[in-house]
Amino acid sequence: MKAFTIGVDYGTNSVRAVVIDCADGREVGAHVFNYPSGHQGILLDPSDHNLARQNPADYVQGLEETVVGALTAAEASGEFKRDAVIGIGVDTTGSTPIPVNGDCVPLGMTEAFKDNLNAQAWLWKDHTAADEANTITKLGFEHRPHFLAKCGETYSSEWFWSKIWHCLNVDKPVFDAAHSWLECADYVPAVLAGITNPAEVVRGVCAAGHKALYCDEWGGLPDKEFLTMLDPALADLRDRLFEKAYDGATPAGGLCTAWASKLGLSEGIPITVGAIDAHLGAVGAGVQPGVLVKIMGTSTCDCTVAPNSETLKDIPGICGIVDGSILPGHFGLEAGQSAVGDIFKWFVETVCQGDDALHMALTNEAARQKPGQSGLLALDWNNGNRCLLVDPKLTGLLLGQTLYTTQAEIYRALIEATAFGARAIIERYKEYGVPVDRIICCGGIAEKNPMLMQIYADVTGCKMQVSASDQTCALGSALSAAVIAGPEKGGYGSFVEAQQHMTGVKDVEYTPDAVHQAAYDELYTLYMNVHDAFGGVTDAADLSGVMKALISLKDRQNS
Amino acid sequence: MKAFTIGVDYGTNSVRAVVIDCADGREVGAHVFNYPSGHQGILLDPSDHNLARQNPADYVQGLEETVVGALTAAEASGEFKRDAVIGIGVDTTGSTPIPVNGDCVPLGMTEAFKDNLNAQAWLWKDHTAADEANTITKLGFEHRPHFLAKCGETYSSEWFWSKIWHCLNVDKPVFDAAHSWLECADYVPAVLAGITNPAEVVRGVCAAGHKALYCDEWGGLPDKEFLTMLDPALADLRDRLFEKAYDGATPAGGLCTAWASKLGLSEGIPITVGAIDAHLGAVGAGVQPGVLVKIMGTSTCDCTVAPNSETLKDIPGICGIVDGSILPGHFGLEAGQSAVGDIFKWFVETVCQGDDALHMALTNEAARQKPGQSGLLALDWNNGNRCLLVDPKLTGLLLGQTLYTTQAEIYRALIEATAFGARAIIERYKEYGVPVDRIICCGGIAEKNPMLMQIYADVTGCKMQVSASDQTCALGSALSAAVIAGPEKGGYGSFVEAQQHMTGVKDVEYTPDAVHQAAYDELYTLYMNVHDAFGGVTDAADLSGVMKALISLKDRQNS
Repeated sequence: MKAFTIGVDYGTNSVRAVVIDCADGREVGAHVFNYPSGHQGILLDPSDHNLARQNPADYVQGLEETVVGALTAAEASGEFKRDAVIGIGVDTTGSTPIPVNGDCVPLGMTEAFKDNLNAQAWLWKDHTAADEANTITKLGFEHRPHFLAKCGETYSSEWFWSKIWHCLNVDKPVFDAAHSWLECADYVPAVLAGITNPAEVVRGVCAAGHKALYCDEWGGLPDKEFLTMLDPALADLRDRLFEKAYDGATPAGGLCTAWASKLGLSEGIPITVGAIDAHLGAVGAGVQPGVLVKIMGTSTCDCTVAPNSETLKDIPGICGIVDGSILPGHFGLEAGQSAVGDIFKWFVETVCQGDDALHMALTNEAARQKPGQSGLLALDWNNGNRCLLVDPKLTGLLLGQTLYTTQAEIYRALIEATAFGARAIIERYKEYGVPVDRIICCGGIAEKNPMLMQIYADVTGCKMQVSASDQTCALGSALSAAVIAGPEKGGYGSFVEAQQHMTGVKDVEYTPDAVHQAAYDELYTLYMNVHDAFGGVTDAADLSGVMKALISLKDRQNS
Repeated sequence: MKAFTIGVDYGTNSVRAVVIDCADGREVGAHVFNYPSGHQGILLDPSDHNLARQNPADYVQGLEETVVGALTAAEASGEFKRDAVIGIGVDTTGSTPIPVNGDCVPLGMTEAFKDNLNAQAWLWKDHTAADEANTITKLGFEHRPHFLAKCGETYSSEWFWSKIWHCLNVDKPVFDAAHSWLECADYVPAVLAGITNPAEVVRGVCAAGHKALYCDEWGGLPDKEFLTMLDPALADLRDRLFEKAYDGATPAGGLCTAWASKLGLSEGIPITVGAIDAHLGAVGAGVQPGVLVKIMGTSTCDCTVAPNSETLKDIPGICGIVDGSILPGHFGLEAGQSAVGDIFKWFVETVCQGDDALHMALTNEAARQKPGQSGLLALDWNNGNRCLLVDPKLTGLLLGQTLYTTQAEIYRALIEATAFGARAIIERYKEYGVPVDRIICCGGIAEKNPMLMQIYADVTGCKMQVSASDQTCALGSALSAAVIAGPEKGGYGSFVEAQQHMTGVKDVEYTPDAVHQAAYDELYTLYMNVHDAFGGVTDAADLSGVMKALISLKDRQNS
């Protein structure tokens, strides 16, 4: 009998559910639900543009609507029945912590707090906790440097402890009313499993490790002594959080009676431990040792895995290294660039006042240029630098302009800048013993822009492939569910085995061109020179030859 | 009886003559002649975009047509008669050397060479002699550092010796046929004076000093030993050039019979020694010690004067310091920025694909911004750096971009960059004891863009004024003729006296705003930091704080 799993993927503006055939990863039904609250699903505060919250009720409503919708669509295909569903996987944005009461109900869904923004889900891109993040970084640097070493040396305002502490600082009633806090990735599986006691919620190591400073090495969450330095109330809260977090090999529970009935699925089928979307996206794209998965959109998230061994050192400037966060038995490594597609969009739409047609025209024109032919060099920091410098207070830079520099040349230079940023991350991985031989990309840019893909191949020296699925996060969740369900139910005995059957890449692939690589090696050296100078890696930079070196390469490429 | 003088101003594409009332500098007649040869008056070589020559016959034809046209126009005014003309002044582009035969006839006007590009006038912007210029700089640095100290440490491909040597290297027949070489500024007065022996041509110290390494201090032109290092043929040529060059106090001759007849003017009226357009433009704008005249167009030329004393040291990075080149009895100092209007034009027309309407819209929007509010900082090197770095192989730079940076913000940052470049020159002048208290601007930008003028005032801390005349070069030539003619003929006894009567500024003026100045002081420090790093002033630059400092100022200006 055929077996199917469901993947539920919570994004920033909507949630999507898919029904996946375990045999080959094919999607047989899907449904999307746009969060109804706020602006495009986000609760905003006009007086504070850093604030971004979500209504947790939207998550619950979206869960039912999308799963039912996807099942209905699958049934319409004629080859699917609901009793063939053997498990459900969930991925969400993160860190998106939610304050809950003692019954595991989000405070934002209670009468007392339903209109209080601080009682809702604190969406990943909420930046209200910048001060708290700075203090955590400062105190971490002084007292617990090993905490920071695992998360790129800087604790972010987007993460768990910053947000909870900020809540304590600005809205003590909400903090006091919160019996515990759940990551969205842990909350949704708990809903499906019918768990009503926060202490019984199975917490995923992905969000815990990457966002909450959780590590088995130092006994789980940060110790009370450290938390007391932040605020004694946080040390108290630690007792009501969790002792242990789990990787994807552990189920979060079985589907509860109520939700089995709502969805028309078998009671008790396993629910996966939830994980952050990009990480399960990497699974759905086929991540394995030596393979970097790049999820390319407005920004990028770069995930890879390394065998779980004692030899892996901390890697400075990499956002996170967490045992089991992507694949059980492997360290999950997450890096990323804070702006990629957003930079091209800014240039075309804001600087050139153009639209998609201009994107296309500039792409075509830029595709005819050789590496270095424009004499331009850019830094890809229009939205700060997430890795390796981990510094939001950096900005873009373009140099090499003459009186003849064209739009298409600048467009290409900006693409190249993001490729150099990608290479910087890859080189750092390699330097610390994590191999990267091949890159699998997901996202619209990868599918729509062969020029960009070839530039990335030439700059990084890696073969570039495109994930076969365009919904790798949802697929990764469904795949995870197939592993949790196990081979006896029609699933798989391991992630590797499941990936072999359920994931793939498109036929087209991009291999490095040796001649282009040589030119890009020159440009990359100049990029890193400027990168280190403005990024604060050095306070004695020699940039005196940069412009001349660019002109020299330009002259050679034009001759 | 009223007295008038004629100013003839040879530009790149056309020549203009004006008839000026000596009493008040008022223009009573004018006529423009577009050079008929080549593309907009320039002879080009499709296979070598560095080549730019001119047909010397155009100069002669234009001389007659414009002077006659201006006189006719002046007569039409009813208040002028030709016998009231007491002198003629001439300014031209430079360095624009012309090979002439033993009869002072340009080789390009002889049958044998009329179709040979190398026998024509070598227009100032001809860049074919880049290799020769580099070698002259290199040999000068090794053997005659005092030569280079007077011309900003770098000998240009645009200048006299580079071009003549290049002619020798690429077209020996032309070089051999040239009895001598005349700057265009010396050729035209010689024509009017009827001089047919090259040895009798009165050479102007302006072109000689700024372009041909002439200085009384080392005995005139470069010594034969040095010229022999370049090529012995150049040492031989030295004997057929000139021993002595003269400032504006010396006449080039009197109007000859033939030209007096052609023009309907009195025979024997004095002809001034010719000078380079920008220098006589400075005179016509009212240059004096403490006053910097900026001729602002696609690029700028910044001229000032310092009393002729022993205390003035060489000023590194300033294009030229020549005794008497602007005003007799003063050192003439010339500096400049290689792109100003050209950068704004590039941004609007090439990057934004806009037109004059966009220039206007961006100006209006940028005018509402405060200094530093955009967080942007730019270098004004899209066409290299003429002063202080004297390096054509430098390029533009823009930093501080976010995902929200607008066209108008970039537009303003580029204007500010040119203002910082202007300030760098002024600070260098001051550092070496040359005061700059006030700036008089000429050119369309100064008249059309009050925002730019206010930014320049705020950045430089100098009062900014606009020349009353919009033809200061032609006016300066006419003024020069009034001084040569002398008070007994209705002219003046000195340049200062003539300037008091014949030049002036418009009513509008721009004074520095102390609050803006303070913000620009911060930005200027950052500009010089980046300037010195990329300009090669330092090989150990600390740029680690630049982006954060820009963000800090931006935050303050936005709060």
